[in-house]
Amino acid sequence: MDDIRLARAYLSRVAEPPAVALAAFIDEVGPGRAAELVRAGDVPDAVRDETSARAGQDLVAEDLATAARVGMRLVIPEDEEWPAWPLLSLANAHGRGLRWAAPPLALWVRGAAKLDEAMQRSVAIVGARAATPYGEQTAAEFAYDLAGQSVTVVSGAAFGIDGAAHRGALATDGKTVAVLACGADVSYPAAHTTLLGRIARDGAIVSEYPPGTTPAKYRFLVRNRLIAALAVGTVVVEAGRRSGARNTASSAAALGKPVLAIPGPVSSPMSQGCHDLIRAGTATVATSVADILEAIGAIGDLAEPDASPPRPTDGLGPQAIQLHDALHRRTPHSPEHLSHQSGVPLDRVRALLPELELTGLAAETEEGWVSATA
Amino acid sequence: MDDIRLARAYLSRVAEPPAVALAAFIDEVGPGRAAELVRAGDVPDAVRDETSARAGQDLVAEDLATAARVGMRLVIPEDEEWPAWPLLSLANAHGRGLRWAAPPLALWVRGAAKLDEAMQRSVAIVGARAATPYGEQTAAEFAYDLAGQSVTVVSGAAFGIDGAAHRGALATDGKTVAVLACGADVSYPAAHTTLLGRIARDGAIVSEYPPGTTPAKYRFLVRNRLIAALAVGTVVVEAGRRSGARNTASSAAALGKPVLAIPGPVSSPMSQGCHDLIRAGTATVATSVADILEAIGAIGDLAEPDASPPRPTDGLGPQAIQLHDALHRRTPHSPEHLSHQSGVPLDRVRALLPELELTGLAAETEEGWVSATA
Repeated sequence: MDDIRLARAYLSRVAEPPAVALAAFIDEVGPGRAAELVRAGDVPDAVRDETSARAGQDLVAEDLATAARVGMRLVIPEDEEWPAWPLLSLANAHGRGLRWAAPPLALWVRGAAKLDEAMQRSVAIVGARAATPYGEQTAAEFAYDLAGQSVTVVSGAAFGIDGAAHRGALATDGKTVAVLACGADVSYPAAHTTLLGRIARDGAIVSEYPPGTTPAKYRFLVRNRLIAALAVGTVVVEAGRRSGARNTASSAAALGKPVLAIPGPVSSPMSQGCHDLIRAGTATVATSVADILEAIGAIGDLAEPDASPPRPTDGLGPQAIQLHDALHRRTPHSPEHLSHQSGVPLDRVRALLPELELTGLAAETEEGWVSATA
Repeated sequence: MDDIRLARAYLSRVAEPPAVALAAFIDEVGPGRAAELVRAGDVPDAVRDETSARAGQDLVAEDLATAARVGMRLVIPEDEEWPAWPLLSLANAHGRGLRWAAPPLALWVRGAAKLDEAMQRSVAIVGARAATPYGEQTAAEFAYDLAGQSVTVVSGAAFGIDGAAHRGALATDGKTVAVLACGADVSYPAAHTTLLGRIARDGAIVSEYPPGTTPAKYRFLVRNRLIAALAVGTVVVEAGRRSGARNTASSAAALGKPVLAIPGPVSSPMSQGCHDLIRAGTATVATSVADILEAIGAIGDLAEPDASPPRPTDGLGPQAIQLHDALHRRTPHSPEHLSHQSGVPLDRVRALLPELELTGLAAETEEGWVSATA
């Protein structure tokens, strides 16, 4: 185990994320030197404010032993696997209205997926825990279709929308990544222990918190900014007025990433957050996987074309449509009668009838003209 | 019966609406002279094109007799009741991308409501004939609430959304106006005969088509532009990809009027048109009557405020939230333990705990500090 990794392991526990000052300090002096100075308390005030409470704790050996035991690895910015490009948005976001800026100092990862590769084509699907059957079904279907097109589905492993999204991706053997607000070795919620195990098999469980960290309200907010940063775009499926998913959405928007929201019945409180995001212009409307693919620019060319078939009367001028309206299917009429009925001048009627006949919309009989469409 | 009214009655039958050239000609020479010249065929080519097919028909006496028999009146631009202000948008719309520009030459009206007054505070509620129960219920509820706030509900008396909107307004004894694509004396659809009778009692049935005119596809499009023009704003409740309601919406948008669309389940084809309108920016999201009132600027002050109650932790700084997260409800903890748990420096913990106590979020016991919220 190299020194840099050991230093990052120490630093990842010494400050509660997001550690804005410590991150900047590490950038400045390097992780090895930063760890030394934090341990010695020889740091600027802002760094001391973030680190003094835990500077004396040294659980590096324990943390790495725990990680080894549960098949968890520490991914650090110095690794090839580090998702540098997605996280760059966070490093640059400080002062851009994002309260939880600052990139993670390291990521604890459990699972087979390489983080950088997994995030290249990824969509966060997030939403309320108290989701409706409509929301869960929509999340699962969208995740299934996205994963089927080799898009990684990122979510937070919570009840409701998160769980449905992970399950939808797994159902097509797709890749899915869970970003947790606790240690990556902590099964939270406990009822999702099996689900988390399945996610780790081909995907990944990711956390910036050291092993054993318990979830806390504050950590969910901090975690949400990480979901927003890691994925190329974020889709909110259902969200109440105060849902954490709205927080993820506004983080993604602040990071300059595409945000989409799925509309639902106006009578459903669980769709209110989505409608608010659309109304405010924070999110665009997503009604299909094609919308999402187009927004994230991944494979927009594969978006399904508008499915509605053209009508035979498409492209006709107003007088031709008026005349066509006046034709009956069974009862033939003279051009004079059709002129009266439609208000189209007789000479125009005489000119237009053969045109309609050519396009298959009218037919001439011995008694006069009839409509030829259904 | 004055000459101008007789001339308008003749002119309202001689051309199939929208009669762009004839409307301009009447503006130029006046209705009396225009009727004379049309009868004589002594008109510019563009006017002849619109009028030659029916110039020889003179059904004025018959039309007025029919109108009198069914309690219908001819409202003309020279009348006080003429909704001049709403229709001005149509007169100015020619060449602004609205295919069916040109105001009506006269309106045949059945019902007690004065048109100009009824339109002052009015909203068109339109949508698909093949509506879902969700759509019909939403249309009826919104119409009920709007009519209860003295807003006139304008629609087209069709099956589905239109009928639900009229019925919703009638259920609260509100005013509702039906604009038809056939004569105002024609009960179309026939199954809505009773509904139309109820609309006419306190509201109005309006048509630019002379008595006895049968509906036709072309006339629905022309009628839609009249609905869009008469109402202050338009709300689309449900619309398939090719629904006529989308036509009404784009007409209203072209006239510079507020357009709103009600979202629905993404799995419902009847909500696709609404989602498309929102995505394209033609319509804004309407999830409540307050949204509609705000958009039409009628009584925006009465819009309901955001209903979500503030949380006790609103307004706390990040460290206070972290500290509050670390507190337990039953198990007391020392400041030192809380500092470790939360990552907040000990001196800050000591300063923040009394602050949290003051706001009722923490309490000090003999064994240490506990959380005081639910």
